[in-house]
Amino acid sequence: MVGRAAPASGGARPVVALAPGTGTLRPLPALAARLASGFWFERTAVNAARSLAAGLAQLEATGTLENLRLAAGTAQGDYRGTLPFLDTDVFKWLEAVSWQLQQGESGGWSPADAKAWSVAADEVIELVAAAQAPDGYLDSYVDVVLGGERWGDLHSGHELYCAGHLIQAGVAHRRATGRENLYTVAVRFADLIVEEFGEGGRRVGYCGHPQVETALVELYRESGARKYLDLAGRFVDLRGSGLLGEHPFGRRYFQDVTPVRETHAVHGHAVRALYLAAGVADVYLETREPELLAALESQWDDMVRGKTYITGGTGSRHRDEAFGDAFELPPDLAYTETCAAIALMQWAWRMLLATGHVRYADMFERVLYNGFLAGVSLAGDHFFYVNPLQVRPHSTLGPEGRQEWFHCACCPPNVMRTLASLRHYLATGDADGIQIHQYLDGSIRAGAAGVDISTGYPFDGGVRLSVPAQCAGEWTLSLRIPPWARGAAGLELDGAALAADETEGYLRVRRSWRGGERVELTLPIRPELTAADPRVDAVRGCAAVERGPLVYCLEQRDQEASIDEVRLLGPARDVGPIQVADVAVPGIELDAEVFVTREPVPEQRASAAPLRAYEAAWGYRPVGSGTRHSDVAAHPHVTLTAIPYFAWANRDFGAMRVWTPLA
Amino acid sequence: MVGRAAPASGGARPVVALAPGTGTLRPLPALAARLASGFWFERTAVNAARSLAAGLAQLEATGTLENLRLAAGTAQGDYRGTLPFLDTDVFKWLEAVSWQLQQGESGGWSPADAKAWSVAADEVIELVAAAQAPDGYLDSYVDVVLGGERWGDLHSGHELYCAGHLIQAGVAHRRATGRENLYTVAVRFADLIVEEFGEGGRRVGYCGHPQVETALVELYRESGARKYLDLAGRFVDLRGSGLLGEHPFGRRYFQDVTPVRETHAVHGHAVRALYLAAGVADVYLETREPELLAALESQWDDMVRGKTYITGGTGSRHRDEAFGDAFELPPDLAYTETCAAIALMQWAWRMLLATGHVRYADMFERVLYNGFLAGVSLAGDHFFYVNPLQVRPHSTLGPEGRQEWFHCACCPPNVMRTLASLRHYLATGDADGIQIHQYLDGSIRAGAAGVDISTGYPFDGGVRLSVPAQCAGEWTLSLRIPPWARGAAGLELDGAALAADETEGYLRVRRSWRGGERVELTLPIRPELTAADPRVDAVRGCAAVERGPLVYCLEQRDQEASIDEVRLLGPARDVGPIQVADVAVPGIELDAEVFVTREPVPEQRASAAPLRAYEAAWGYRPVGSGTRHSDVAAHPHVTLTAIPYFAWANRDFGAMRVWTPLA
Repeated sequence: MVGRAAPASGGARPVVALAPGTGTLRPLPALAARLASGFWFERTAVNAARSLAAGLAQLEATGTLENLRLAAGTAQGDYRGTLPFLDTDVFKWLEAVSWQLQQGESGGWSPADAKAWSVAADEVIELVAAAQAPDGYLDSYVDVVLGGERWGDLHSGHELYCAGHLIQAGVAHRRATGRENLYTVAVRFADLIVEEFGEGGRRVGYCGHPQVETALVELYRESGARKYLDLAGRFVDLRGSGLLGEHPFGRRYFQDVTPVRETHAVHGHAVRALYLAAGVADVYLETREPELLAALESQWDDMVRGKTYITGGTGSRHRDEAFGDAFELPPDLAYTETCAAIALMQWAWRMLLATGHVRYADMFERVLYNGFLAGVSLAGDHFFYVNPLQVRPHSTLGPEGRQEWFHCACCPPNVMRTLASLRHYLATGDADGIQIHQYLDGSIRAGAAGVDISTGYPFDGGVRLSVPAQCAGEWTLSLRIPPWARGAAGLELDGAALAADETEGYLRVRRSWRGGERVELTLPIRPELTAADPRVDAVRGCAAVERGPLVYCLEQRDQEASIDEVRLLGPARDVGPIQVADVAVPGIELDAEVFVTREPVPEQRASAAPLRAYEAAWGYRPVGSGTRHSDVAAHPHVTLTAIPYFAWANRDFGAMRVWTPLA
Repeated sequence: MVGRAAPASGGARPVVALAPGTGTLRPLPALAARLASGFWFERTAVNAARSLAAGLAQLEATGTLENLRLAAGTAQGDYRGTLPFLDTDVFKWLEAVSWQLQQGESGGWSPADAKAWSVAADEVIELVAAAQAPDGYLDSYVDVVLGGERWGDLHSGHELYCAGHLIQAGVAHRRATGRENLYTVAVRFADLIVEEFGEGGRRVGYCGHPQVETALVELYRESGARKYLDLAGRFVDLRGSGLLGEHPFGRRYFQDVTPVRETHAVHGHAVRALYLAAGVADVYLETREPELLAALESQWDDMVRGKTYITGGTGSRHRDEAFGDAFELPPDLAYTETCAAIALMQWAWRMLLATGHVRYADMFERVLYNGFLAGVSLAGDHFFYVNPLQVRPHSTLGPEGRQEWFHCACCPPNVMRTLASLRHYLATGDADGIQIHQYLDGSIRAGAAGVDISTGYPFDGGVRLSVPAQCAGEWTLSLRIPPWARGAAGLELDGAALAADETEGYLRVRRSWRGGERVELTLPIRPELTAADPRVDAVRGCAAVERGPLVYCLEQRDQEASIDEVRLLGPARDVGPIQVADVAVPGIELDAEVFVTREPVPEQRASAAPLRAYEAAWGYRPVGSGTRHSDVAAHPHVTLTAIPYFAWANRDFGAMRVWTPLA
């Protein structure tokens, strides 16, 4: 009864397509990328050391685990919380622990740690298994709150969404540990879903919250059983037919307006749209149906043209957590959910594998260092759900800082599983060599090819690679050159300048390596000012500071003037490091002037006689002649200090802005 | 058992304070202001001829009237709709019909019309009365859906809010018609509420949605019974003590964070905040308690400084229909509910009466001509709930244009009652003469004083007043000079320039009128460009066009270039009238340049070598040297045409903007 297919050839890491493909990239073997030190080692070590433990404590404290006990009949009481998808917090946490277990000591856990975590995970898995019905069904909300009434609300019941996260966790746990206790639970539920929703099954439908699509394709890859891929394809094919019915926010809210193949723009709830896109990309990776890729590419273009924040965040609207219209990108009202950042990374990774196009790796990096990483505190135990690019003083818009957990806690365990599996997403390899998309401090091995890497990236642009003796042979080392460095990257081989083609965003060095060579890549990391497309009304006349892959921001606590009352005067420059929690980040200084005076405002209209009785407080004034702000008298100069956006709100929570007006 | 107090001395029109006060203004007698022709005559005639009939049809079609039949036990079935306050749509409609009936033929209804409407209103009143419980309670949702479980949910049940609208309707109907059939129903419910919530009553609490406060004060004025004023004061005094409990959007959502007297900023749900402020102002008008006025004045200052749109709209946020932070005024994401405009007019009027300060009349005018009037179609049968100041092409943000009715239909009948009672809010009078706050085409009589007025306002700045023979005597004619005209208004008496003091926003002419004099006021109405406080990030570097009291906008249909891709080059100028539906509005032309080229964008960073591989679609670029938009090559010039904001979306629904970038 339980899926017993042999592990697929790919195995042991995410998104290894079974379909024979050409012109695409392949994920590295399971432990091929190791983080030894440096930026991502530290961030993932915090995840391993603190976030996972905090997550387990929260799952217990909030009653999310108790809900599973209720479903299993081993506890009595009411369902805790009100949302129907709280089980997924458990599943995502299990997925995170699994990926962390896979790394062993290289991930920061001692053997004793790993043993303890494996036991803790098994206890949770036991709880999950106990909550499963004899026929494979598993959903504590449906069991406890709805009296077991299944599939009654595909519109907003989230049952398939929950199943998807269970499947992802089961697959990850098997890939990471080789064990089947969670995988078996997942497969049993998946089989029931295939019976229910597969071709000829009892029901025709799909989930209001996409996510199960990518899970089913991963289960296909893990099990080799085609039926899971077919069902994922079926969900993709059916979507857009309106079967879900109406939604208060419109059918576009859950991407049910047009068939996937005819959808050329991103719209609706951002996380749903992006999980769906990732699932469609997964189906494409296995079916190679050109229409799917074409639709995904148009959706991508639409997204990056005017629906993506400079941080890689998406979702402009609080009301329905949705993409805005093109160029509707308010920094203050940005929703930019942490889960949307994660979903975008998942989509970007699959598009990179499918096409090999550098732009997907570029976007992965942008989201990773900014929109995603800001979602978790540097200490690893507080999280943002919403990630604004501007916070006004004493804002009433959101909570005052990161929270330990949420009523709707999708983001924290999503951060955890992403960091725990991050090393899978840094490089690819094929018969021709290795392709490094993100710069890590550690090592990469792919078949005969391999490099050891030492770098201070993202703070420093020097990347020193050495080819170990055992990697001698002819292969190509491909190094992604980020967009801000293209045409300006330096490359040396054993201390001598090396001419290498920069093609399609990668410097490619093909040679017969003897082993022992030292390759040094120099990326010009320095502060730069960036402007938005002038159609982005919300940040017209403003600049953001970027430094390498990092977007910067101004926090009020670092300034001598109100950040809402200054204009930038000149270029940005490096200053010494600034300590934020236990991370020393490169600071940036900017010259600015204060544009709001506290003196009484002269009340006159350009074309009329002086008006004595303009209401002093009224927020609008006649446009002056010659200058836009004729009401400004003196402009005291100040020096502003910026820090990386990912580090904001780690000292206190106050006013912050990414975009600042230019004088 | 029913309140039988004699009509109060004020009677027959809104907000006539009973308290003896000095230094404040007094509403005019009931029929003192008559609209004979011109702008407001037309708009209110459309309301009388079309909106009221459309409203009645909708109340029947949507089942809102049927709900009252269910409560009365004269029909069977389920409650129609899901909201607990649908009864208020009936009450507001009845209030509108009442004020219209008061006007008789001067309001546009023939005697036959008036008779028919009186009968129609009586039928609805009968329905309302039948739904009333023997003890006076009346709420169809509570009766039908909650099985009569009363007062169980002050947090969001809206019972007192519903009662407030019933009371307002009952008072209006009695003032307007002298009849007591609706008033009696209202008084019975009000008496029950006093028993329940009054000092020593069974309950201590107040409503999650303020509104009953102003209704109770009006009932006090109408009945003379102090207990209603006391209860209004009690609700005001208790508010802010946290009795309502938590709210998902925070307790500030329903103004339950701080006591009213300690609240110095507007916050939370805009309509709630503004109805509460109006209610507090009503209490102040009767009690003259300085702390209440001080709190209201600080709230006002906070609102107009950075929480009010140029249209007079308020409420920046869709999610919780709330005020934003200071200077959070996005034109595209503006919520600016039509009801918030109406609530602000109610507050402004009460502040004007309380203080005589011109700024409240200024704001009343701004809201009236812009944020309020845009809420209804020129044909009178379609309504906006949300009133954005910018709509992008094919926006997914709201419905495509005004709607006939809404699931939550608070706005349409609110518009109707406001237009039907508008003449009460145009001028005031006292022993010293009359004060004209808004310019109407018609006549005003107040005791011995009076003028006939002929004007093309708001399209034309000439206001011709004549003093009829019967108004001979010594009195002061006070004419409000709008802020854009202060210091620049012309005044003539019988063709000769007249020197008159412009004090505190009013030109005041005190003399012994013989009768027959002709006074001509000339207000300099011409197109002007307005800028926002530079701290309003969302419209930085932009200008709006204003012409007299009217805010203008660009509708895409009138332009030869995309309104999202143009920058203004120079001043605005009048062009001939533009026909919008059956209204000819003054058009305005602006010179502009197109700033978005369709050619490939040069991909380079200011300080680096050319970058070949910047993703073409990515919406961000390095800040160029010297210009903010170095990616713009050619700037074709175009001429743009603007129309008044109130008239937008009357020909079709497409892209629109109030704020346009300045070159």
